[in-house]
Amino acid sequence: MSNWLERDRAAIWHPFTPLKGMTEPEMLERAEGVNLYTKEGKKILDVISSWWVNLHGHSHPYLAKALADQARQLEHVIFAGFTHEPAIRLAERLLEILPDNQSRIFYSDNGSTAVEVGIKMAFQYFHNQGIERKKIIAIDGSYHGDTFGAMSVGDRGPFTTPFDPYLFEVDFIDFPEPEKEEEVWSHFQQLIGTGEVAAFIFEPLVQGASGMRFYSADLLDKMIGLAQSQHVLCIADEVMTGFGRLGTLFAADQLENKPDIMCLSKGLTGGSLPMGVTSCTDAIQAAYRTNDLMKTFFHGHSFTGNPMICAVANASMDLLLTEECTANRERINQRHQAFLKEIQDHPMVRNCRQIGTIMAFDLNTEKDTSYFNEARHHLYPYFIEKGLLLRPLGNVIYLIPPYIISDEELDYVYSTISDFLNEYDQIASH
Amino acid sequence: MSNWLERDRAAIWHPFTPLKGMTEPEMLERAEGVNLYTKEGKKILDVISSWWVNLHGHSHPYLAKALADQARQLEHVIFAGFTHEPAIRLAERLLEILPDNQSRIFYSDNGSTAVEVGIKMAFQYFHNQGIERKKIIAIDGSYHGDTFGAMSVGDRGPFTTPFDPYLFEVDFIDFPEPEKEEEVWSHFQQLIGTGEVAAFIFEPLVQGASGMRFYSADLLDKMIGLAQSQHVLCIADEVMTGFGRLGTLFAADQLENKPDIMCLSKGLTGGSLPMGVTSCTDAIQAAYRTNDLMKTFFHGHSFTGNPMICAVANASMDLLLTEECTANRERINQRHQAFLKEIQDHPMVRNCRQIGTIMAFDLNTEKDTSYFNEARHHLYPYFIEKGLLLRPLGNVIYLIPPYIISDEELDYVYSTISDFLNEYDQIASH
Repeated sequence: MSNWLERDRAAIWHPFTPLKGMTEPEMLERAEGVNLYTKEGKKILDVISSWWVNLHGHSHPYLAKALADQARQLEHVIFAGFTHEPAIRLAERLLEILPDNQSRIFYSDNGSTAVEVGIKMAFQYFHNQGIERKKIIAIDGSYHGDTFGAMSVGDRGPFTTPFDPYLFEVDFIDFPEPEKEEEVWSHFQQLIGTGEVAAFIFEPLVQGASGMRFYSADLLDKMIGLAQSQHVLCIADEVMTGFGRLGTLFAADQLENKPDIMCLSKGLTGGSLPMGVTSCTDAIQAAYRTNDLMKTFFHGHSFTGNPMICAVANASMDLLLTEECTANRERINQRHQAFLKEIQDHPMVRNCRQIGTIMAFDLNTEKDTSYFNEARHHLYPYFIEKGLLLRPLGNVIYLIPPYIISDEELDYVYSTISDFLNEYDQIASH
Repeated sequence: MSNWLERDRAAIWHPFTPLKGMTEPEMLERAEGVNLYTKEGKKILDVISSWWVNLHGHSHPYLAKALADQARQLEHVIFAGFTHEPAIRLAERLLEILPDNQSRIFYSDNGSTAVEVGIKMAFQYFHNQGIERKKIIAIDGSYHGDTFGAMSVGDRGPFTTPFDPYLFEVDFIDFPEPEKEEEVWSHFQQLIGTGEVAAFIFEPLVQGASGMRFYSADLLDKMIGLAQSQHVLCIADEVMTGFGRLGTLFAADQLENKPDIMCLSKGLTGGSLPMGVTSCTDAIQAAYRTNDLMKTFFHGHSFTGNPMICAVANASMDLLLTEECTANRERINQRHQAFLKEIQDHPMVRNCRQIGTIMAFDLNTEKDTSYFNEARHHLYPYFIEKGLLLRPLGNVIYLIPPYIISDEELDYVYSTISDFLNEYDQIASH
């Protein structure tokens, strides 16, 4: 085993991974359902759906078959000048479940590119009409991806420090915590009032990477309403929240005012393969439907609309739209609620929150809640040792399991967390 | 059929595709070897390897099997804290065939992200050491992708106009055409002399999207040598040139001085699935191997190191490294050369050029060579009608076929091009 890990270290640079002081990675052999199996035979329950992507469990035979079939028929083709059934079907099915105002599907390769496409679509929408609008509003603490455009509309902080001089300027509003809502609303009104804003981009209802922070749907609705009344395009980054994570299929389903542009990835393929989708309204595309070649949206990646990935996404959609899957999400929702009630008064717990299949609380450590809170260093190995993949954001412990997780598996997750809370003093002192 | 195309138009926004005035896309049913088959039964030979990605032919059974097997075993897992055989094997095999100075593999999802990772690695390399170097040198006409960082280091032009205000500044040197080499070299020396340059990024030997423009390996070698003597990091964007396209496995194999960072994609998976790789020297990674958590490279995408894509890339590597594949590339090289000799004196032909499996010439139209040269509008439908997928860059006609293309298939491609040249006056007047 150590041989594999040495080989890994000698050849690979892992994402978001410090090169010193970390526990060794786990060497996986296979995965099935909610479980990952190491080469040494250890079983680890993937409670975070492998970076929030997995919906139906690992190595799902139905997805595997869709992929294998497509691989033998039409594995890939340039998506300019060519099209195919898997891409058309997927686009139509997405438009069926997305808010009614969404009209066109633009494919790309991951969440970052879905966001970059969304931003570019918005900027060029105004450019094509000769309208001078150059500002963009984003929310403090937001995370939209790691490419330069996606970083630009995200929070400035330790992730971006070395790159800050290369990021374009964005107007940030504070994160709308309950006690700050009025202040945020007034700042937002003022920014929109300048008439210079092209777009407002946000993670709807829940900010993921900043620590699973929830905010008011009512306020967001009001902000979208105001923005749209002033012809500001609203871009919802539903990369994490899409495909049922928050109970409804999309976070936008919990809003009255629908975004103009939506960015999707992660659950789009059931968590099996990378794909990004940016959807938009007809009004946006209309600004590009001219005979002026220079008004073309010159964006594309070599593997845009890959037939195999479309086929897997279609298969994932089959499973997502079953009554069984909806019932599972509701079951997880109920179980999460009940568990939070149990632990909410525990001295080690604060700020309990839950929506749909996402549950989170802050570990009540002395230091402030933050990605760099040291609690993480106790937590991660502790849970791996117990056979659970949790990946706390600093001192924020959250669950975002595949929808097929069983009641027995949830019981084990909850009881392990309870044990952890009760033993925390002992664990932290080691 | 028209039904499918209507559905496509109603739901999908295609990459790099004007929304008016274009011929309808082809509706594909399947693909095999070098051929694409439409639902109507038309056969189209993919002479451009579907945006330069396909190496071994379409729907290859060996790649399909590797994918199907991996899909049932370990389809995907978070690549932070976890690793697996397909990723380790692929990284090791890449390091075996990459220049000796390349030491670590960072995975991402496409060519744009491979470039973004390369730029970020370079900037943070200096940042981590507290060295103030903020400039980057790129070459006029370069294309490195469509995300904001990749656009920033690429040529400013019609593709980027709406986004120019949001791109970070780069020092561009002129494209080193033979008569400009001395001037370019002197400008380059001057820029390096400022001591402010962090990195030099380039498409080695051939610029792709700007029109398959070739430039001197000797000059590039000299530039890399000078840059490295002043501790400037050299980033080779081998997204198109990698994996045998130029005869050698990488363009860098034709240089004495090896790049510090290399960006790969396209052929990496044999053209089947999206993947990016950024490789770097040990010296670069060393600047990140500290106990200071803030010096971590905080970059990652959800599907980084996807096991299925790694498995397909490994299978593609099996085929790439056979003697048969090497012989095929050499055969294409010879055939291209012979054909260019035949047509080089044709009045409709200028600027013949060829390297490895890439062959290009400019159609001798009245207007200047450019992506927007109108010749494209005659050329594309003409060749599709003849069963050939060529996608001229303006008036630049180029071939970049899958390596398995047979002599008979090449004969058909060449003779169709010859016919086209002889009939051009007639074709253009329609």
